[in-house]
Amino acid sequence: MKYSYISHLECPKCRKEFSYKLVQQLCVCGSPLLVQYDLDNLTKDLTKEDLKKRTNTLWRYHELLPVVEEDNILTLKEGMTPLLPLKGIGEVLQLPSLLLKDEGLIPSGSFKARGAAVGVSKAKELGVKELAMPTNGNAGAAWSLYCAKAGIKAHIVMPLDAPDITRKEVSISGAALYLVNGLISDAGKITAKMVKDNDYYDASTLKEPYRIEGKKTMGYEIVEQLDWEVPDVILYPTGGGVGLIGIYKALLELQSLGWIDKQLPRLVAVQAEGCAPIVKAFNEGKEESEFWSNSTTKAFGINVPKALGDFLVLHGIYETNGCAVAVSEVEIEQAQKLTAEKEGLYICPEGAATIAAAKILRESNWLEEDETVVCLNTGVGIKYPETVEVTATYLDKESFTY
Amino acid sequence: MKYSYISHLECPKCRKEFSYKLVQQLCVCGSPLLVQYDLDNLTKDLTKEDLKKRTNTLWRYHELLPVVEEDNILTLKEGMTPLLPLKGIGEVLQLPSLLLKDEGLIPSGSFKARGAAVGVSKAKELGVKELAMPTNGNAGAAWSLYCAKAGIKAHIVMPLDAPDITRKEVSISGAALYLVNGLISDAGKITAKMVKDNDYYDASTLKEPYRIEGKKTMGYEIVEQLDWEVPDVILYPTGGGVGLIGIYKALLELQSLGWIDKQLPRLVAVQAEGCAPIVKAFNEGKEESEFWSNSTTKAFGINVPKALGDFLVLHGIYETNGCAVAVSEVEIEQAQKLTAEKEGLYICPEGAATIAAAKILRESNWLEEDETVVCLNTGVGIKYPETVEVTATYLDKESFTY
Repeated sequence: MKYSYISHLECPKCRKEFSYKLVQQLCVCGSPLLVQYDLDNLTKDLTKEDLKKRTNTLWRYHELLPVVEEDNILTLKEGMTPLLPLKGIGEVLQLPSLLLKDEGLIPSGSFKARGAAVGVSKAKELGVKELAMPTNGNAGAAWSLYCAKAGIKAHIVMPLDAPDITRKEVSISGAALYLVNGLISDAGKITAKMVKDNDYYDASTLKEPYRIEGKKTMGYEIVEQLDWEVPDVILYPTGGGVGLIGIYKALLELQSLGWIDKQLPRLVAVQAEGCAPIVKAFNEGKEESEFWSNSTTKAFGINVPKALGDFLVLHGIYETNGCAVAVSEVEIEQAQKLTAEKEGLYICPEGAATIAAAKILRESNWLEEDETVVCLNTGVGIKYPETVEVTATYLDKESFTY
Repeated sequence: MKYSYISHLECPKCRKEFSYKLVQQLCVCGSPLLVQYDLDNLTKDLTKEDLKKRTNTLWRYHELLPVVEEDNILTLKEGMTPLLPLKGIGEVLQLPSLLLKDEGLIPSGSFKARGAAVGVSKAKELGVKELAMPTNGNAGAAWSLYCAKAGIKAHIVMPLDAPDITRKEVSISGAALYLVNGLISDAGKITAKMVKDNDYYDASTLKEPYRIEGKKTMGYEIVEQLDWEVPDVILYPTGGGVGLIGIYKALLELQSLGWIDKQLPRLVAVQAEGCAPIVKAFNEGKEESEFWSNSTTKAFGINVPKALGDFLVLHGIYETNGCAVAVSEVEIEQAQKLTAEKEGLYICPEGAATIAAAKILRESNWLEEDETVVCLNTGVGIKYPETVEVTATYLDKESFTY
């Protein structure tokens, strides 16, 4: 039995095929490429019961991941993060089956570790020695750390406003850090030039085909953790949208394997009111989004004015009868506080946005009381300490009063 | 079969016994109390093979934990953190079997979550409504979050110099935060007055008997993850020392159950040169430590000038032929950087201290090349961003040069 059942890469727009044995970036038509597997043979060779005895990391799904040789895997034990019942918030929102996929318990404290673990392992397998990428912070941090482990030199281009802690992660791992007075779209333009001038591997979102393969494992895990029952709804904080595209891809693969029924969860893209290009496109029934000018939100990871994979995100929403919803900064803040006070979880603003969205969708009855709803928390709150105000009493050690 | 095999509480100094059904703090003689279990019956009822099918959290050892009713358990899926091979550092240090128990992958990002999960669950079972504790940051953060989940009001007293992020965690969870211009010893004095005046439950280190029960699970896990082989050495960053006391207790319990051999790992207490009371006591062959004046270290969690359980820490070291070693601030910094660059792990300064200590002990040949050595990283580096310097290139979005 093979370690990976990867068969080829395919363009979802023009259907052109490419080999996975060579470095590939975008399709000649400009679209991202998606990895395809030999699912017909895999369904004969593997059952979902076989998974039970495996490692408690995302590598338990190695046949459905692109790394061909087990020796090329770089792991810090990423994946199989908790799927926690949110009883306290569920009571408040009248959603008793509300769950949180908590991506805080993962190396580097954000779900970007999934894309980095798989993306860097595959880059290493392909012989990559040097790569570059733009980032809103967390992806750059995760890729820097896994690249350090792999011995790959990373060039990370980050907006000046990105969370300060992610700079520390990039710096301590020995990657080259570039700070730009702009948005991730500006960082993307600089990265493109850097890649062209130096012949680096381009690790930008969806410009290499493997990051999404790491992200999709969230979809496998949610379903496996629910004992192969599909939830009714998954809410995902959407910037570049790779996680949503990945989860949708994972669900289709599980269907092809016959491991889940035909009914898919409704996928919901959650954005901030200050940067909601996917929500706007959805509300207008469009298949692609437009560049969102002057975007702003404290949920920095979803401050993406125009996603390269926007058409794939919208396709996933439409095909699953999902929706797209925007939340305000105040709603994000309130949801973050509510989650800490009711559940003992200090989640990141992006994750809090999905809780805020669940509230809105429950109030409008788009979510019904008996539905199983999964919110995706993409990382720990402690990476964004500036979003929380501290209230404290100051004491003097000599006086002993309080 | 009972959920917990707890039998009673016992004083390790005067051997007086107490009931676990009532709130207990210190022994009448002033010593901490330790929890005892009915191991004779448990060894008949449970085998180590039974554990294989259980939850991937510390609650897999529930018979050896003090919570009597399963319904009283508060869990955010803490425990069963990775035991990672450190191949890159192992090569540098000529210690090929060097391992890291990585307590970064745990709720709140530090191993304090173990003590909090078990301590708060037991406090809830005992009917506690309000508690107080001094903290160097991480313990207060973890207890605040679990107390929020439990509906227990927490009063947290913290030095002004404690890591800033831990204030945010306390504040967002709704706990009362008190900041004092002193050390944890000063915070301890204020807490004592607060407890006395208001009849709060005293959750100070070792002043309640259950936090250590959460911490000891690190010992169970290390051994189970090594397939019930005991490592040769465990290095532990020692402030209050609860983890070392707990690991030693866990190993003795596993011996009593017949699950491991008589040979125990040598336990090493690692301290910073700026606060090394246990190291001083060890070097002088003493059984208790003296208060360390003007203590200072960037590894804030081990800035404890006098630990209540110092005699238990020293006992564990002497009984296992271990040792105590102090490392400098520069050595801590270098070890933190080395771990990021070689392993892709951004660990906390306390964890880095154990890597620095491994280097020293290997150079002196106290550690031999063929020995299995476990370093304990107590939390994520991102909670201490101020300890890392950033090197970056600043770019202008208009010019496109880099």
